[in-house]
Amino acid sequence: MFQNEKPREECGIVGIHNAPEAAKLAYLSLYALQHRGQESAGIAASDGTRLLLHKDNGLVAEVFSETVLDALPGRGAIGHVRYSTTGSTRTANAQPLMANYHGGQVAVAHNGNLTNTDELRTTFEKRGAIFQTSTDTEVFLHLIAHSSAVSFSEALLLSLMRVKGAYSLVLLRPDCMIALRDPRGIRPLVIGKLGDGYAVASETCAFDIIGAEYLREVRPGEIVTFDDTGMKSETPFAQTDPAFCVFENIYYSRPDSLSGVDRRTIYEIRVDLGRELAREHPVPADVVVGVPDSALPAAIGYARESRIPYEMGLIRNHYIGRTFIEPRQSIRDFGARVKYNPVRGVLAGKRVVVVDDSIVRGTTIGKIVAMIRRAGATEIHVRSSAPPWIYPCYYGVDTPSPEELIASRLSVEEIRRQIKADTLGYMSIKGLVKVMPGHLAYCKACFDGAYVAGKPQKFTKEIHEG
Amino acid sequence: MFQNEKPREECGIVGIHNAPEAAKLAYLSLYALQHRGQESAGIAASDGTRLLLHKDNGLVAEVFSETVLDALPGRGAIGHVRYSTTGSTRTANAQPLMANYHGGQVAVAHNGNLTNTDELRTTFEKRGAIFQTSTDTEVFLHLIAHSSAVSFSEALLLSLMRVKGAYSLVLLRPDCMIALRDPRGIRPLVIGKLGDGYAVASETCAFDIIGAEYLREVRPGEIVTFDDTGMKSETPFAQTDPAFCVFENIYYSRPDSLSGVDRRTIYEIRVDLGRELAREHPVPADVVVGVPDSALPAAIGYARESRIPYEMGLIRNHYIGRTFIEPRQSIRDFGARVKYNPVRGVLAGKRVVVVDDSIVRGTTIGKIVAMIRRAGATEIHVRSSAPPWIYPCYYGVDTPSPEELIASRLSVEEIRRQIKADTLGYMSIKGLVKVMPGHLAYCKACFDGAYVAGKPQKFTKEIHEG
Amino acid sequence: MFQNEKPREECGIVGIHNAPEAAKLAYLSLYALQHRGQESAGIAASDGTRLLLHKDNGLVAEVFSETVLDALPGRGAIGHVRYSTTGSTRTANAQPLMANYHGGQVAVAHNGNLTNTDELRTTFEKRGAIFQTSTDTEVFLHLIAHSSAVSFSEALLLSLMRVKGAYSLVLLRPDCMIALRDPRGIRPLVIGKLGDGYAVASETCAFDIIGAEYLREVRPGEIVTFDDTGMKSETPFAQTDPAFCVFENIYYSRPDSLSGVDRRTIYEIRVDLGRELAREHPVPADVVVGVPDSALPAAIGYARESRIPYEMGLIRNHYIGRTFIEPRQSIRDFGARVKYNPVRGVLAGKRVVVVDDSIVRGTTIGKIVAMIRRAGATEIHVRSSAPPWIYPCYYGVDTPSPEELIASRLSVEEIRRQIKADTLGYMSIKGLVKVMPGHLAYCKACFDGAYVAGKPQKFTKEIHEG
Amino acid sequence: MFQNEKPREECGIVGIHNAPEAAKLAYLSLYALQHRGQESAGIAASDGTRLLLHKDNGLVAEVFSETVLDALPGRGAIGHVRYSTTGSTRTANAQPLMANYHGGQVAVAHNGNLTNTDELRTTFEKRGAIFQTSTDTEVFLHLIAHSSAVSFSEALLLSLMRVKGAYSLVLLRPDCMIALRDPRGIRPLVIGKLGDGYAVASETCAFDIIGAEYLREVRPGEIVTFDDTGMKSETPFAQTDPAFCVFENIYYSRPDSLSGVDRRTIYEIRVDLGRELAREHPVPADVVVGVPDSALPAAIGYARESRIPYEMGLIRNHYIGRTFIEPRQSIRDFGARVKYNPVRGVLAGKRVVVVDDSIVRGTTIGKIVAMIRRAGATEIHVRSSAPPWIYPCYYGVDTPSPEELIASRLSVEEIRRQIKADTLGYMSIKGLVKVMPGHLAYCKACFDGAYVAGKPQKFTKEIHEG
Repeated sequence: MFQNEKPREECGIVGIHNAPEAAKLAYLSLYALQHRGQESAGIAASDGTRLLLHKDNGLVAEVFSETVLDALPGRGAIGHVRYSTTGSTRTANAQPLMANYHGGQVAVAHNGNLTNTDELRTTFEKRGAIFQTSTDTEVFLHLIAHSSAVSFSEALLLSLMRVKGAYSLVLLRPDCMIALRDPRGIRPLVIGKLGDGYAVASETCAFDIIGAEYLREVRPGEIVTFDDTGMKSETPFAQTDPAFCVFENIYYSRPDSLSGVDRRTIYEIRVDLGRELAREHPVPADVVVGVPDSALPAAIGYARESRIPYEMGLIRNHYIGRTFIEPRQSIRDFGARVKYNPVRGVLAGKRVVVVDDSIVRGTTIGKIVAMIRRAGATEIHVRSSAPPWIYPCYYGVDTPSPEELIASRLSVEEIRRQIKADTLGYMSIKGLVKVMPGHLAYCKACFDGAYVAGKPQKFTKEIHEG
Repeated sequence: MFQNEKPREECGIVGIHNAPEAAKLAYLSLYALQHRGQESAGIAASDGTRLLLHKDNGLVAEVFSETVLDALPGRGAIGHVRYSTTGSTRTANAQPLMANYHGGQVAVAHNGNLTNTDELRTTFEKRGAIFQTSTDTEVFLHLIAHSSAVSFSEALLLSLMRVKGAYSLVLLRPDCMIALRDPRGIRPLVIGKLGDGYAVASETCAFDIIGAEYLREVRPGEIVTFDDTGMKSETPFAQTDPAFCVFENIYYSRPDSLSGVDRRTIYEIRVDLGRELAREHPVPADVVVGVPDSALPAAIGYARESRIPYEMGLIRNHYIGRTFIEPRQSIRDFGARVKYNPVRGVLAGKRVVVVDDSIVRGTTIGKIVAMIRRAGATEIHVRSSAPPWIYPCYYGVDTPSPEELIASRLSVEEIRRQIKADTLGYMSIKGLVKVMPGHLAYCKACFDGAYVAGKPQKFTKEIHEG
Repeated sequence: MFQNEKPREECGIVGIHNAPEAAKLAYLSLYALQHRGQESAGIAASDGTRLLLHKDNGLVAEVFSETVLDALPGRGAIGHVRYSTTGSTRTANAQPLMANYHGGQVAVAHNGNLTNTDELRTTFEKRGAIFQTSTDTEVFLHLIAHSSAVSFSEALLLSLMRVKGAYSLVLLRPDCMIALRDPRGIRPLVIGKLGDGYAVASETCAFDIIGAEYLREVRPGEIVTFDDTGMKSETPFAQTDPAFCVFENIYYSRPDSLSGVDRRTIYEIRVDLGRELAREHPVPADVVVGVPDSALPAAIGYARESRIPYEMGLIRNHYIGRTFIEPRQSIRDFGARVKYNPVRGVLAGKRVVVVDDSIVRGTTIGKIVAMIRRAGATEIHVRSSAPPWIYPCYYGVDTPSPEELIASRLSVEEIRRQIKADTLGYMSIKGLVKVMPGHLAYCKACFDGAYVAGKPQKFTKEIHEG
Repeated sequence: MFQNEKPREECGIVGIHNAPEAAKLAYLSLYALQHRGQESAGIAASDGTRLLLHKDNGLVAEVFSETVLDALPGRGAIGHVRYSTTGSTRTANAQPLMANYHGGQVAVAHNGNLTNTDELRTTFEKRGAIFQTSTDTEVFLHLIAHSSAVSFSEALLLSLMRVKGAYSLVLLRPDCMIALRDPRGIRPLVIGKLGDGYAVASETCAFDIIGAEYLREVRPGEIVTFDDTGMKSETPFAQTDPAFCVFENIYYSRPDSLSGVDRRTIYEIRVDLGRELAREHPVPADVVVGVPDSALPAAIGYARESRIPYEMGLIRNHYIGRTFIEPRQSIRDFGARVKYNPVRGVLAGKRVVVVDDSIVRGTTIGKIVAMIRRAGATEIHVRSSAPPWIYPCYYGVDTPSPEELIASRLSVEEIRRQIKADTLGYMSIKGLVKVMPGHLAYCKACFDGAYVAGKPQKFTKEIHEG
C-alpha cells in the first residue's frame, strides 16, 4: 500500500470501574478512540476475583464479537488501541499486557513512551527476567513484579519513581482500577462519572458514546485509585511544570473532545489556530480549503479571520481498506487519489489557500498541491496550523527518523519549492502557544527540541511503542 | 445493528473498454463509487474471447484481492456495487449477472429499476424460462435470450423496447462493451476517455481515481457501443422529455462528481440549495451546522446566504463496522451516538440551525435534535435541503413503505413537534427546481408523485433491486 | 498439491422426507457420504411452502454451521456432495440446483452424467434459455421448465424420456420429494424408513448415522414420490437390462454400505474379490498388504484365500489438508510420502503381495512399489482387484483422458515394468462378474468399453459433472 | 461436540539442524506427528542470528501457510504440536515458548510434564518473575533465565538438575539446537541424519516424510547439542533405571514408527500384544474385529494367535471436523455413530471378539458394544490390549480425574456388566511387559501406580500441559 504520510496516531486507553457489562462499555469507548490506533485492540476485564484478556490485531469492531465480549464478564475493564505499523503484525505487542506474579494478577494499558527502559531492561535481564515483547510497558511490569514492596500500591509507586518519559496508564487488578499520569502530564487522561461507577479515557469523546459525564482530567503526577470505597487521589511526585503534548490539540485528539485544561472543545482551539494562522500568514485569495478531516476546523478559522470563503475543496474517501491494490500501469499520484479527490468547481480559476495541520515528509501535501493545480487553481497558498516538525517525538508518537522529517532537512522556502506551492506559511511557536488554553504548559519538543522528560540513550523504532 | 435511517444509496456501475488491467481499473472505479452500494461488489471481465466473473457480498476491498483480480485478465471489464439490505445475504442477487445463451456470453450491470418485469417474468416462465434471482435485471437478460433477432445489437434493441422504468446499463460481450440509459435518463451514466480506450461510470469521481478524462454523459435514450472501431452512438428511442433523478444531486452522488447537465460539481449545486433554503426559511440564529457528511455543502450554503457562522457541530465516526454490539443496559439514543457526536463548544448557549438533506423516518434527525439540545443549544432550527419525501421511488432507490416515510404521514408542523425542533423548514419543490442545472428536466416523483416512467402493478421489496 | 491419482469419487445425494430438522439430518447423511465428493456441499430444504438453499465449496463440516442449518427449516430436504476438481472453484456448479419457473420451485441433486445434453442445450438456447452452469443437470431443469405438461409429475416424466445416460436424482418440491434412477440403474440410490418419514441416499451408510432403517433400493427405472400420502412408486420406462456400476462395489462405495442387490456389505464383496484375485493370480509370498484404506478388504480376502499372513504394511496419513506446502529441495516421491508410510518391520526381507483396487495413471502404485522396495522387500507382487481400466467413464465418474489411463496405453507386462513390480496381476472381467451379487447385471464399460447407455457425441471435461 | 473418550495424545516435538528451508522441514515433520496433538502447532526458526516464531491454535496445515513458512527463514528450526483440550483456546499455551533474557534468545518445545513446577513457580514469583502461561515449560525457561551460570549450556544443566518429572525437550538458540531427555527417558525422542544436518523428533515417522535416516534414540538422561561442529553428546545425570512410557507402544505412537529400544516397528509390538492377549484371554468366536485405527494391529495379532478370522467390522469416518452439529431430536449413541459404523455382514449372527487398546471412561466401548449388538452379533467379547487404566498419568498424558477412569472405580466384572459385553479380558501387566522390547525398562504408572519420577504435590489440569 502507499505510505501513510500523516503522523501516526499514538495509543488510546480506557477504563471502566464498577459498571455492569464493563467490557462492552470499554469496547464502545475504544471504538470512539479508534482514531488513536488502528493496529490492535484489547480489553482486560475483572470478574472480581481474576482477570481475563482478549486482544488481537485489527480494528475494535474486528477484534471483538458479541461472543468474545460475553466471555469477559464483570464490572471492571480496561482497554487499549494501538496505532498501525506498516507490515508488522506483532500481536505480542498488543495491549493490555497482563502478568501473573507474586502479587497476583495485573493488567496494564499504556499511552506514552518510557525513555529509560533500555537500562532497566538490561538490569532485569541480568536478574533473570524473561521478556515476551519489545515494549517499554513490559519493563514497567517487571518493575512492579521485582519490587519488594508489600502492597501493590507501594510497588506501583516505587516503580513509577524509577521510570522516565511520558505515560498515561490504566491498571486493572481483580479488585480495583488505577489511572495515573506522569508528573508532566504529557499524554492526556480524563475521568468521567458512569452511573455508580467511573470511566477513564484518553479523551472525553469516549465518555459521550457510553453516556458517562466528564468530571475532570487526571492531573499531571496524580494517581487515582478506584475501588469499593470509590475514588481516591494521591499526588506523590515532587511538583513539576506540566507539559501537555501540544500536538494533541493540533492534530491527534478528536475535535469533539474537551481540552483537559479549560473545557473548550478541541474544535474551538483549532478554529482559533486557523484564525491566528490567518493573522500570521495572510494572503489575497478566493477560497480557503482544508485537508480533510483533521485540518477542516483550522481552515474554517482561517476563512473566518481572513473573510475568504470556506469551501470543501477536497473530498476524502472513507472506505479505504488496510490493503489497496495498485495497477501495474502508472497512475499519477495514485496514493493521494485513492484518499482525496478535488472538487473542481470550487478550485478552477481560483486562488486557493490550503490549510493542513501536519506536514511530515511533505509528499502528501505535494501531491495535494499538484491535484489542486490540475483542477485549475491559479495560485496555491499552503498554510500549516502546526509549526515546522523538526525533532522526533520520544513521548509516544510514532516519529519518522529526522532525515524523513522534511522540516528537519529543508528551510521553509525549500519546502515551498519542493511541494510546488506559490506561498507556504507555518504557524509560529509563539502564535501556537498564544492560542493554547493556559498558554505555557505544553510539551512542544517536536517543534523546539526541548525534551522536558529526557531523551532515551538509544532510541530504536522497536522499543518505541504505543 | 441499529436501523439505517438514511435513504439507502442505489447501485453504482462502471465499465472499462480497451485498457490493460481492465479489471483492476474497474475495481478502483467501483471503490470510488462505494457510497452507492456496500452490500455486494462484482466484476465481469473479457479476455477477448470469453467472460469471467467474480462477485460476492462485501465491500469492494473485501470482495477483491490481488489474486482474484489477476484471475480476471483482459482489456474489457464491467463492475457493480449494490446497496446493503439489512440481514439479507442473497449473493445470487449480486451483479454483474452473466448468462450463456444461444448468442454466446453476456454480462450486465444495472442501476435502476424496471417497472414492468412482473408481467414479463410470468410470460417467460410460461415459455419455459428458469430464474435464478428475484431481480428485474434477470428478466432483461431473458428478453435478450428469447429474442429471435439475428444480431446481439438487434436483440438488445428489441429488448429495450419491451421494458419500462429506470435503467442505466453497462453490458459486456467478449468483443465489445455497451453503455445505455433509459429514454428519460433517470439514473446517471457518464463517459470518460482512458488512454486509447474508454471508461463509463455512474459518476465522474470514478474517472478521477483512474486518471480518466470526463467526456460527456450518455444521453437519455442513447446506446453507446465500444468496440474495435471505437465508440459508436445510437439514439433509437422516440424523443421523450428527460427526467434525471433530482435526489442524485441532493443526496446520492459524491460532491466531487460533476453534474452531467452543466459540469458544475454536485458540491456547488448543494451549496446553492443551501442558499435557496436560507432564502426560503430564514431564521435568526448564532450558528449553522450540517449533518455530516452529505449535508455539509448545503449547510455551508445556508451559512453563506444567511451570514450566520458555519461550524462543524457534529462529528461523524467513520470506523463503524457492519455489525455493532449494543450493551443490554440502555444508553439513551445509542444508535445516533455511535454515529455522531456533538461539539459542545459551538452549540452550548447557541441558537442552532441544523441542515439535513434526507429526512426519511424522522428518527435520526429526532435523535440529533435531542443530542444538540443536551449539548446546550437554546434553540434548534431544522432545515431540509430536500422537499418532504412523500412518495416511494420505483426507479432504483431503496424506499421504505409509505407508512414509514414520516412526510407521508404527518404535516410539517406535526413532524416539527415529533422531532422536537423549534422550527422546521423544508425546501420547496419550486426552489429545488430553480437551483438545479437546466431547471425542468428532473424526476422528482418522491416529492410530487409524478411517476414519469410508470409504476409497477404490484411492487414488492423483493423485486426492487439496485 | 500433488496430483490425485485415484479415480475421483463421483457425487453423493440424499433426501429426507417428513422428519423434524430435515436439513440437519440431510447434513449428517451427507457427512457419511463425504467420501463421494469433497469439493462442494449443498442442501435445499422445504418449509412446506417454499424452498431455501445453501451450498458452497468445501467439506460438509465447513459449508454448514449451526446458524446455516437453522436457516433451513422444515420437514423436507435434499443434499449433494461433489467431488474435488483440482484448481477449479466453480461454486456455480455446486448442487442442489434450484429453479423458479412457471410450475413453481424445484431443487434437484444429481449423481451420474447425461450423455445427450449437448444437443438439448443447443436446442434450448435456440429457444431463448439462459444457462448459469456448465452442468448436464441444468439442462435437465430446462427440460422440465420448457415442458408443456400441466402437472409436475408429467413434466418430469416427459423430461426423463428425453435424456440419456446415467442418473440417480432426488428432487425437492415445496410439497413433495421424488427419487428416481435411470432405466439401467447405473448409479446407486436406496430408500430408508425414518420415523414417520423416509430417507433416500446414494448408500446405506447415510442411513446408519441418522438411525434410519434400510428398506430397499430405488429400482432401475423407478420413480418414487414421497408426499402427504406416503410413498408411491411408478415404473414408467420400458423394461431394460439393469447395469449397475461395478466400480461402486470395487472402489467407490463405503465398505459398511449394503449392496442394493443382495444386502451383502460392500466389504464382503471386496473380500470375495480378493479371494478370487488370489485364485487367479497366486504367488508364493510372505505377507499380503493392501493400499489403504479402500483396498484393505481385498487384501484381507487375498490373504485368506492364499493363506499368506495379512499385515498393515502401509499407514495412511488422514490429516492431509487440501493444500500442502512442498519444499523447494527435492524429496524423493514426496507426494506419496505425505499420504503413505511403509511399516518397515513387516516388509523388510519379505516377499510382499500389494493389493490395490484402482490403478489409474500408474504413478501412485509406482511410488508405493518404490517405497516398499526401499523398506527392504525382496519381491513385490502387485495385484489389482479391478480389471485394467481402459475406457473412460461417461456415466458420472471423473475420468482422465484415455492417454492418461495407463492400461489404455500399455500392456500388463509393460505396466509391470513401468511400476517396477516383480509380478503384476489384474482381476479378470470374468472373475469380477462371478463375484458380484446377481452376476450379470453390471455396467463395466470402463473395463470392456460396452457403453450400455450410449456415449456423448463430444465429451468435454467441462460438461462432465458429478 | 460429543466428548472425546480416547486418551488424549500428548505433544509431539521436532527439530531440524543445518538444512535449507528448515522451517518447511519442521512443518512436514510436525504434520507426520499430528496424531500427537491437534490443538495447536508452532515453529521457531533461526536465521543464524535471531529466532522467529509462529504458532497458533489449529492443525499444522491450518496454522502454516506458504507465506508464514517463508517468513521463517534459516537452517535451524524446532516445532511442536499440542493435543486438543475441549473448549479451551489458550493460544498463550501453544509452543514453542520463546524468551528474551540476559543470555539472548531461546525457544523450547516440550513433550512431557514437570512435577515440581508449583514450588519453583512460587519461588520465582517471589523473586519478581512474571508468568505469561500456566505451563510447566515456562517455569523451565525461568530456571534458565535466573541461572547465574555464565554459559547457556551450564545454565541449562543447572536448570535440569532442579526439575523433576518427564521431559523430552528440543531447544533452539540462534547458533545451535539441543535435544535432551529426562534421566528415565519417559517420553520418546529420536535422532535422524538429514543431508549435512540432523533431525530430531518424537517418532521416526517424522523422519520418513522428509527423507531423513533414523540414527538412534536420544538416550535417557542424554543432552545432544547440534552446532557448527556437528553433534555432541553429554550424559551429565547420575545413572538411573530407564522407564519408557509403555502406553506409547500400546496406543500413542504411530504404528509405522520404530521403537527406540530394538528397532521393531510399533506395529509389530502391537501385533504381539494381540497374540499375548489371545493367549491370556482366549474365547471361542467367529470373527475378530479391532476398534479402528489404533487397535487394528492388536486385533490382527489376536486373530492370528487364535486362528479366528480377522475382519474389518467397524469403519471409522475420517472426515470429522472439530465441531459437529447434533440434531435436537435424539439419535441413539449419536456420538459413536458419527465416528464408527458397523459392517453388518461380518457381525450378524456371529460371535465377535472386539479388540480395543484404551478403555478410559468406558462410554465409547459401551456404545460400540451396543452398535455391534444391534448389527446382529450373538456374542460380544471385549479384549483390551492395555491393562486396566487405574492411575492418572503425571508425565505428559492428558488424564481424566481418577473418578472418571472406569477401571479406577469398577472391577473388571463390573465394567463388563456396564458395557454389556458377554466377556471382558484386559491384558495383564506381566503379559504386557513380556511383549515389550527389552522387557523391564518401562513406566507403567497408569496401570500399577508406581510413579518412577515422583508425583506433583498438587496436580491441577491447568498446569498439566503437553
